[in-house]
Amino acid sequence: MVEYNEKQVKKVDVWRLKKYLVKAKVLDISAGKNIIVLNDDEAKEHDIYSGFRTELTIKNKKLVAIVDVGHESIRPGEVGIYKDMAANNGIKKGDSIEILHLNQPASISYIKKKLDKGTLNDEEIHTIVREIMEDKLSEIETSAWITAAYINGLSDDEIISLTHATMESGEKLNLGKKPIVDKHCIGGVAGNRTTMVVVPIIAAAGIYIPKTSSRSITSAAGTADTVEVLADVTFNIDELKEIVLKSKGAMVWGGGMKLAPVDDKLIRVRHPLSLDPEGMLLASILGKKKSVGAQYVLIDIPVGRGVKIPYVERGNELAKHFLRVGEKLGLKIEVIITDGAEPVGNGIGPGLECLDVLDVLGGDGPDDLRHKSSLMAGKILEMCGKVPVGKGYKVAEDLITNGKALSKFREIIELQGGNKNFKRTDIPIGKYTHTIIADVSGSIFHIDNKTMAKIARIAGSPKDKGAGVLLHRIRGDRVERGDKLFTIYAESEAKLDFAIKALADLEPIEMRKMLLGSIR
Amino acid sequence: MVEYNEKQVKKVDVWRLKKYLVKAKVLDISAGKNIIVLNDDEAKEHDIYSGFRTELTIKNKKLVAIVDVGHESIRPGEVGIYKDMAANNGIKKGDSIEILHLNQPASISYIKKKLDKGTLNDEEIHTIVREIMEDKLSEIETSAWITAAYINGLSDDEIISLTHATMESGEKLNLGKKPIVDKHCIGGVAGNRTTMVVVPIIAAAGIYIPKTSSRSITSAAGTADTVEVLADVTFNIDELKEIVLKSKGAMVWGGGMKLAPVDDKLIRVRHPLSLDPEGMLLASILGKKKSVGAQYVLIDIPVGRGVKIPYVERGNELAKHFLRVGEKLGLKIEVIITDGAEPVGNGIGPGLECLDVLDVLGGDGPDDLRHKSSLMAGKILEMCGKVPVGKGYKVAEDLITNGKALSKFREIIELQGGNKNFKRTDIPIGKYTHTIIADVSGSIFHIDNKTMAKIARIAGSPKDKGAGVLLHRIRGDRVERGDKLFTIYAESEAKLDFAIKALADLEPIEMRKMLLGSIR
Repeated sequence: MVEYNEKQVKKVDVWRLKKYLVKAKVLDISAGKNIIVLNDDEAKEHDIYSGFRTELTIKNKKLVAIVDVGHESIRPGEVGIYKDMAANNGIKKGDSIEILHLNQPASISYIKKKLDKGTLNDEEIHTIVREIMEDKLSEIETSAWITAAYINGLSDDEIISLTHATMESGEKLNLGKKPIVDKHCIGGVAGNRTTMVVVPIIAAAGIYIPKTSSRSITSAAGTADTVEVLADVTFNIDELKEIVLKSKGAMVWGGGMKLAPVDDKLIRVRHPLSLDPEGMLLASILGKKKSVGAQYVLIDIPVGRGVKIPYVERGNELAKHFLRVGEKLGLKIEVIITDGAEPVGNGIGPGLECLDVLDVLGGDGPDDLRHKSSLMAGKILEMCGKVPVGKGYKVAEDLITNGKALSKFREIIELQGGNKNFKRTDIPIGKYTHTIIADVSGSIFHIDNKTMAKIARIAGSPKDKGAGVLLHRIRGDRVERGDKLFTIYAESEAKLDFAIKALADLEPIEMRKMLLGSIR
Repeated sequence: MVEYNEKQVKKVDVWRLKKYLVKAKVLDISAGKNIIVLNDDEAKEHDIYSGFRTELTIKNKKLVAIVDVGHESIRPGEVGIYKDMAANNGIKKGDSIEILHLNQPASISYIKKKLDKGTLNDEEIHTIVREIMEDKLSEIETSAWITAAYINGLSDDEIISLTHATMESGEKLNLGKKPIVDKHCIGGVAGNRTTMVVVPIIAAAGIYIPKTSSRSITSAAGTADTVEVLADVTFNIDELKEIVLKSKGAMVWGGGMKLAPVDDKLIRVRHPLSLDPEGMLLASILGKKKSVGAQYVLIDIPVGRGVKIPYVERGNELAKHFLRVGEKLGLKIEVIITDGAEPVGNGIGPGLECLDVLDVLGGDGPDDLRHKSSLMAGKILEMCGKVPVGKGYKVAEDLITNGKALSKFREIIELQGGNKNFKRTDIPIGKYTHTIIADVSGSIFHIDNKTMAKIARIAGSPKDKGAGVLLHRIRGDRVERGDKLFTIYAESEAKLDFAIKALADLEPIEMRKMLLGSIR
């Protein structure tokens, strides 16, 4: 339509034209990622704002960095370079750096589409995940993505795409063996260390179970924290492969390898509002299971007061969603709905939970943990066809009774760098203790997962392996005034004092009451 | 329920117990707000994460600071203190500082409620606004709030509460006079400097119009940028009062005073996704109008291709929403829907737009700007009862023709620190120019607001007051091959070149085409 006075100009991206030249100023601060600090006014003039991605050209080398502004010490014509970034790239004070505002990530319009209740296609979902992995999205944008998925939901097809994208964001375990099974618990139940019982049972039965677990975020201990009492849990994917090929089972920390790493990037953004959109939950769990090559997956959905899923009905819905999406992903899934209203096992905290596990593997231990673990192991053995339906529980129990599960457990501990001949007395248990006594007689109506976790954390869990809470009684128990209810363990007197003081505001155990209120 | 071995312990907030002592390390970086840097592992141990708020005790003085982590240079036992924070509070290297994790802001649960499609009450909305003002919410949380308001919407009562909270977040103008009128344009139209014509007309008619305007964010110029060509625009609320009491009108930058400052805090979060939830838009605009004491407000909703409101029907809905909420707020509102598909006036960029305004006030100038300004001024005069309905337009036109508007304009410019005897030739206009010529004959079908703004910005607007685009033809004009279409102005040859190069990818003017596509 228009005719130029000049010769034909080259086709260019107009926003890439806004580059400008500044001198480096190395800052005495490190971030572990590329951050540059620009002068506020100067950045605005170039349409660059905090959180934007820029491309830097320094001595013909190109780098991508996130922009920060508003630091008063950066004058126009300067760019502040974080110390580690300067060191890693040989940038010195006074070096000329060209700043180029990168285009808006493509994801922005896809996130906007989801905000407007649209449905994203496979490529759009993959682009969002890729750009999150490339650090191209700010926390503001990522928060909008999660919020939109939370409110507007994700379709089954979107979840399938997200699962594949999540999987492709990281590494894969290629065992070259079959069948491979896995398990996952939705979480929120204190204690509940079934993995450490189920994995040795399944592996002892000759089935591959390369189990990766998480560390605690808000609980008293994650499985990884508890295994760590006896062995290492941080391994890369090749080391995991070696362990599993030898022993058939492993109990490692998922964060040690790059399985579905996009998830780790989202946790920081999901955490403040505890936002866990169902579609993202499914994609995250199933993406990790597919990443380790699992064909059979048992999902445990605990329901009850204070856990993520409050009612059985809601648990059933979620279970159906797992089955539907799992089928499309080529996964054979079974879901169990379990009572999650109270802690499972007696210990809460890494060392105390570890004792429960050893007791169960020794043929004793808390009834609930032993029963739940055998139930789960049995289901898995039935699912993958190892034993006929209806026989799994018995086979699992037998593997405990005949000592094969415990010796498999010792074998895995050794392969993970621990001492296979550990004794019960090797488990660290805090030497500062305080026991809470019933001041009324009655029956126990409720033991609160979150409150118990809070007490254990204040006492030092999971960092202090010996810190935590040991329950002497469980729900439904009849207690008399003066009976012991639970004991707090800590590794320092100060932390024990904190935990005791905290009790003043907390009600970890509720007794049954007849009168629930009076209205007049 | 429990009985303590110790004496009765004091009621304490359990999360407040997790305090710890560290030594200050002053960092060579400033942020203009309180930021501390903690060692990553140590912070985690105390349940403190990036973005959390902490209370610091330093020599018995308490401060609130935002936490950053992950800087490799901070070791356990140390806290990094930004240079300005250290200077402002007399913190020296090695000072002992007690770190205390503050409770989660109350807003978090209210935001969660909105995410779950709940309705917030007045107190909940006020709490969110207050905590945003107190910097207690992170960008992640604020982004979730805006996203939730965008997807789930805000009820009229929520908008009323938000308007009051927005208003209360800042200062108020108490003129002690009546009537006070105001106007607002939803924006997106290039040029369109009606405020600079309407304000002097209204003030010349003896009506108070303390108009605050914004600067450009993505456009070529905001009203504040354009007024600044002739006068200062940054005044505090007392100075604004003085100007308006003298001349009845003012044309100042809203950002210069603390009117509804919560809005400024949200812009950074809304900008990346261009999220502008309707309820927040209403609360923001009406909160500002109430803050200056306006009783009568004229709202201009431009509709058309490329502006915020694409269709008249959508404009009507928004207009009704304004009237409904305005009535509950005790504001008399009138809304006009205008054609916003093309720029209003010939100039795009501060200096060029200023010339249009001066020409219109001189009785000449672009027809569209003159007509729209008289229409708006007339409506306002009718709304507040100054002139009978149906006479406003004529009265407004007369105030231009008899020179009273222009002399009022000069008076306001002088009160705002400018030279009242400015001449047309005083306006800075870039000396580097490039004119685009039609390469076909035909009629002009569309002139694109956003594309023209982009060209003007690449040429240097709004920072370079003389940079911009001057349109020689408007929509519907018949042009012959070789006719001038528009001229780009820049203050440097390099910026002009950037703008010319950018044209290769842009289509700022579309000619009418008969064949729109062929499918086979």
